[in-house]
Amino acid sequence: VLAANRRFYDAFEALDLDAMEASWETSARAACLHPGGPWLLGWEQVRESWAAILSHTSYIEFEIVEPRVEMIDPVAWVTCVERITTVAGGGQTVSEVAATNLFVIDGDGWHLLLHHGSPIVRPAPLDAAEDEPEG
Amino acid sequence: VLAANRRFYDAFEALDLDAMEASWETSARAACLHPGGPWLLGWEQVRESWAAILSHTSYIEFEIVEPRVEMIDPVAWVTCVERITTVAGGGQTVSEVAATNLFVIDGDGWHLLLHHGSPIVRPAPLDAAEDEPEG
Repeated sequence: VLAANRRFYDAFEALDLDAMEASWETSARAACLHPGGPWLLGWEQVRESWAAILSHTSYIEFEIVEPRVEMIDPVAWVTCVERITTVAGGGQTVSEVAATNLFVIDGDGWHLLLHHGSPIVRPAPLDAAEDEPEG
Repeated sequence: VLAANRRFYDAFEALDLDAMEASWETSARAACLHPGGPWLLGWEQVRESWAAILSHTSYIEFEIVEPRVEMIDPVAWVTCVERITTVAGGGQTVSEVAATNLFVIDGDGWHLLLHHGSPIVRPAPLDAAEDEPEG
């Protein structure tokens, strides 16, 4: 399951729509929600969103933090945090997205049924000194 | 499944922690993410968050918009939009949250395994006239 999960993020990093399609169950029950966005239901809508995202991204890198896998055969789901590095306009940005990835296994391996990504909001530190080493 | 889904929101509206607990599988694999928040993993963490949320809420109402149910026995998942009305400080606020609710069925019915809620961000209209009827 974690390999299938990684394959999804590898396809995103490679900006490769064919690889992205290969990591999904390309059926009517596919569902995807990008951070802040609405539900995209059915592979047609989901594919369209990936085509747009991949073609508008120049560089993106995913570090998957603390993935947790649960399984009830033939379904499995991963909860994780995506630590995302993007490069645009000469600058580098790191952000964090919480994700649910739901998979089903068939003769051809694990495929994504649902991806739900959402921004993680951290309260701003009240006291900058908290970020400094003591002393 | 939709009845179990509604039971979860009814428990939230009733601010009833026992009813909330009854709508979940109270196991180590329970997972919950409130909008903007981090992953809460295991029933202990999930329960603690609901205890805090329910005790700090005075009024909340959920209209569940366009719920979609998919099922791979013994698992089912609902994707939906929660149209939330809260009342605080004499004012009423309506907001929308996109949710994934994952259920498993056992001898005692459907129970939540995972709830993932995330804010839906709408771009501000550039031209207020777009909201006006034509003519």
